[in-house]
Amino acid sequence: MIQGIGAAAGVAIGKAFVLPAWEWDMPDHRMEKVDLAQEFERLYEGIRTSKTEIECMKNEIKETVGVAESGIFDAHIAILEDPVFMSEIQGVIERQYKAAEVAVKEAIDHFVTMFDLLDDEYMKERALDIKDVGNRLLKHLLGTPEITLPSDTQPYILVAKELSPSQLVHMNPEHVLGMVTMVGGKTSHSAIMARALGIPLVSGLENKLVEPFQTGDLLVIDGDEGTIYLDPSQEIVDRYTEVAERLRRRKEQLQLLASVEAVTKDGYRMKLASNISSVRDLEQAIKYGAEGVGLFRTEFLYMNRTDFPSEEEQYEVYRQVAEKAGDHSVVIRTLDIGGDKQLEYFDLPEEDNPVLGYRAIRISLDSKPLFKTQLTAILRASVHGNVKIMYPMISSLEEVRNAKSLLEEAKRDLDERGISYCHDIQVGIMIEVPAAAAIADLLAQEVDFFSIGTNDLVQYVLAVDRMNEKIAHMYHPYHPAVLRMIRQTVMAAKEAGIPVSVCGEIAGDEKAIPIWLHLGVSDLSMSSELLLRVKHRILNTFASDGKEIGASCFRLSTNDEIESVLLQFSEKDVVLDRKC
Amino acid sequence: MIQGIGAAAGVAIGKAFVLPAWEWDMPDHRMEKVDLAQEFERLYEGIRTSKTEIECMKNEIKETVGVAESGIFDAHIAILEDPVFMSEIQGVIERQYKAAEVAVKEAIDHFVTMFDLLDDEYMKERALDIKDVGNRLLKHLLGTPEITLPSDTQPYILVAKELSPSQLVHMNPEHVLGMVTMVGGKTSHSAIMARALGIPLVSGLENKLVEPFQTGDLLVIDGDEGTIYLDPSQEIVDRYTEVAERLRRRKEQLQLLASVEAVTKDGYRMKLASNISSVRDLEQAIKYGAEGVGLFRTEFLYMNRTDFPSEEEQYEVYRQVAEKAGDHSVVIRTLDIGGDKQLEYFDLPEEDNPVLGYRAIRISLDSKPLFKTQLTAILRASVHGNVKIMYPMISSLEEVRNAKSLLEEAKRDLDERGISYCHDIQVGIMIEVPAAAAIADLLAQEVDFFSIGTNDLVQYVLAVDRMNEKIAHMYHPYHPAVLRMIRQTVMAAKEAGIPVSVCGEIAGDEKAIPIWLHLGVSDLSMSSELLLRVKHRILNTFASDGKEIGASCFRLSTNDEIESVLLQFSEKDVVLDRKC
Repeated sequence: MIQGIGAAAGVAIGKAFVLPAWEWDMPDHRMEKVDLAQEFERLYEGIRTSKTEIECMKNEIKETVGVAESGIFDAHIAILEDPVFMSEIQGVIERQYKAAEVAVKEAIDHFVTMFDLLDDEYMKERALDIKDVGNRLLKHLLGTPEITLPSDTQPYILVAKELSPSQLVHMNPEHVLGMVTMVGGKTSHSAIMARALGIPLVSGLENKLVEPFQTGDLLVIDGDEGTIYLDPSQEIVDRYTEVAERLRRRKEQLQLLASVEAVTKDGYRMKLASNISSVRDLEQAIKYGAEGVGLFRTEFLYMNRTDFPSEEEQYEVYRQVAEKAGDHSVVIRTLDIGGDKQLEYFDLPEEDNPVLGYRAIRISLDSKPLFKTQLTAILRASVHGNVKIMYPMISSLEEVRNAKSLLEEAKRDLDERGISYCHDIQVGIMIEVPAAAAIADLLAQEVDFFSIGTNDLVQYVLAVDRMNEKIAHMYHPYHPAVLRMIRQTVMAAKEAGIPVSVCGEIAGDEKAIPIWLHLGVSDLSMSSELLLRVKHRILNTFASDGKEIGASCFRLSTNDEIESVLLQFSEKDVVLDRKC
Repeated sequence: MIQGIGAAAGVAIGKAFVLPAWEWDMPDHRMEKVDLAQEFERLYEGIRTSKTEIECMKNEIKETVGVAESGIFDAHIAILEDPVFMSEIQGVIERQYKAAEVAVKEAIDHFVTMFDLLDDEYMKERALDIKDVGNRLLKHLLGTPEITLPSDTQPYILVAKELSPSQLVHMNPEHVLGMVTMVGGKTSHSAIMARALGIPLVSGLENKLVEPFQTGDLLVIDGDEGTIYLDPSQEIVDRYTEVAERLRRRKEQLQLLASVEAVTKDGYRMKLASNISSVRDLEQAIKYGAEGVGLFRTEFLYMNRTDFPSEEEQYEVYRQVAEKAGDHSVVIRTLDIGGDKQLEYFDLPEEDNPVLGYRAIRISLDSKPLFKTQLTAILRASVHGNVKIMYPMISSLEEVRNAKSLLEEAKRDLDERGISYCHDIQVGIMIEVPAAAAIADLLAQEVDFFSIGTNDLVQYVLAVDRMNEKIAHMYHPYHPAVLRMIRQTVMAAKEAGIPVSVCGEIAGDEKAIPIWLHLGVSDLSMSSELLLRVKHRILNTFASDGKEIGASCFRLSTNDEIESVLLQFSEKDVVLDRKC
């Protein structure tokens, strides 16, 4: 058994197909005479062919997956047009008299090494992009056939050191049962695409070595647990075959719950909304029975572009979401970039501790025209549905007041332009900075609702960057300090008579239900895929029991104790999980 | 007037001496023929001379300043022995047929650019070290005389782009009235040395340009405010001459308070201890009347070395400190590395958010033999004075329990070795992670005392990295959320009947005194230089008034409101500040 990170859920059983690392057969590095003109001609020809190929992929993805995802390939084309990268290649050809392919290889290695050195997730992703584009270019220069995935064999489990966007484009879920990559984590491009494709993925193997895997090896992978069984016993195979079958049946049964209300056995009604990033996400949310959108992450509107989206472009998206959500409310969170989220066309400072840095509302309040454009677009969309505004990363009263006064300005401008909007649009804030939880009573006087963002809250309260492998095991959503800060926030909201919901990851964790029952939180917002599981658990719970368990958690003093009580409760009496 | 960062307090009035940037007069870059053997001989000769020079400086500093500071030069010698740096130089000579000085220059530029690119304070400091060493080597290769500071003129204000350790060694406080550097901040090497030398320093000028300054210009600099007056009016000069005189007299008067107890006008007794990093710091602390050591930062014992200090070495230092402190208590904080503090010989992972990463107790509990060595050394020193142990960065009960069980192990080992120690040595923790404040009641059951580390607490509670220029203005120690978490901690300690002190930066801020009076915190620990100012303020305060003001702060809802109330109070009735 090999342990990795469960990056996309599900199990797979099948033969491994190990993707060979791209190693190019290079001509001699130091050629005595190179025909410069000829090498440049070969280089330019290679670039042209590569570009055409990338454009094709882009269009393909745009049709089949979505506009946002296709944007990745704009970044790839931009690399082929990047003057720094190109002049590096030309320089090697010109000054060192090397062949075009050698120059391209050296330039890739140079930039990849540099970017990798930076130890910054974003730059590492850029390194992967450069490698991807560079390898495409090399392929054309060397005339080596592209390594394609077999499609004429049995479906297999793909094993690779890493997977690039180009490789994922051609991934056919019918042939690929599951994937294993040595590097990467839950938030890598491959993980996001694997989840979208519904292919189980285990990433980030500790020793990062492909060697133990051979094409043809029998593998069982568990994308929930992050485990890989190499040459598993018949027992393991049987067990996982059963699990796979159970999962399939369970999925069918759960889907039946989409149209059922989330009510406990003793009649306590909860409301489960979805966290979305696009109109497409909302469609999926509706399919799974989401009661509205608890968190619309607007930053994805700003990504994979060359400039900020206009008021009109944003309005169009917000309007569509508002309309599609019908009577349900849509909480639109204003731009939350910075930290680990960057925009290619917006120059954010490099920071030593970006998570504690210039991000979200801090940037918005600093870039007023940008912020006002977004607020205006949201206001305009507010007449098409039940739209609410939410500010991220609030840590003080002043920030709320400044944001609200800018909103008033945007309203006045719309009045002048004679454009209608919902005059009493509700304004809320994320409670995700410890300071906000600590002064929740003061903040509650200023806003219409709270939404608790547990992901950031946990990381600040515990001073643990969950993306940091060395300490990720210390990221404890059920740490008593976290629960106390959540309780403090909920109590402040109730005292002030404003609604409070939870939109962080633990909202989608069935284990947490007793906490919500005890605190009297009835609104949760989560990834759409988790909706039905959580609803199923609610349907099988007595609120009275849950409340008692939730209350007992606040008498415990460590994360382990609390988590174990919650786990025990969540595994009790669950008919579907055990029997079906 | 030019605004910068006040990096070392005090004012200076005098003529500018602008240190020319080191620009070398290089031979032609592409020489047709270079005698390789000769160039290597020149390179090695230059390295030998440079090393001897650095050794001399090191010994000089060891005698006059201290062993820890002299260690900086070990790092410089290590650069001259660094195989990567050297092979880069040799490679340029050998493969590109360039002269030794050109090769050295290119290697410096290469590494400096690379390190600067990393945008990491630690690596930037390393870049400065490489520049410093490289320039020394260049000086010997080019035979250019070193730029020395004039000593035969009037004392002057030194203006430079940046100052390196080598340059600061030769700084003579008798000649240098004050300093201005374009880059750097409060925590740079230059700032630390400037404060040690008592020379006012203004750093980090916004446009980073030396150009406006000319040698001979009249300057007034204010190291508290971070302001520089270029060609000041007679009025400014008069005003600052008066300020300087007042400061001198004030210093004399304050020193008289060293032997006076810190008691408010109405008899409330407070205890002011010092934060120290070395035996030498303790001597200064005693001079300023510190009542013990509230925080002994042991990480400096681990720095500027090639390996971890042995039990014996540590014991020796702890024993000296315990003995020198006499009856007063000495709180020894266990190793607090990680974050922005690195050890050259201990390979810590590069992290995206080191402040939220692998540091302090997290490393100690992961490196048990290392941690146990330190605990054993502290235990052994405990028989020589009033020694206490304190764990940094505690965020859970488990950490405290694990640390305590390791301490018991260390005690058992000492029992076996027949070495005596204080059996009931007190064990406390830093409250600096929001989680610790939130579960202070639970932690108070496990330890003998708390010390509130406000610096980290503020940065986690507000999610603001204070070293990040873009958001440093949001670092608010008087934010109501911070005050509430401090109050929560103090109340938990009082409830459990254990003492609580404050050792973060605001302990040394006179403005904060009403907060301590209101909360009933009587123990503060701070930099020795701040002791007398704080004591003076206490002596001039009625505890009854302070308590009222402190209480009123908890009814206010923004940092600005609170800070302004505290500022107003701290400026009231202060005879010395205004009149002397």
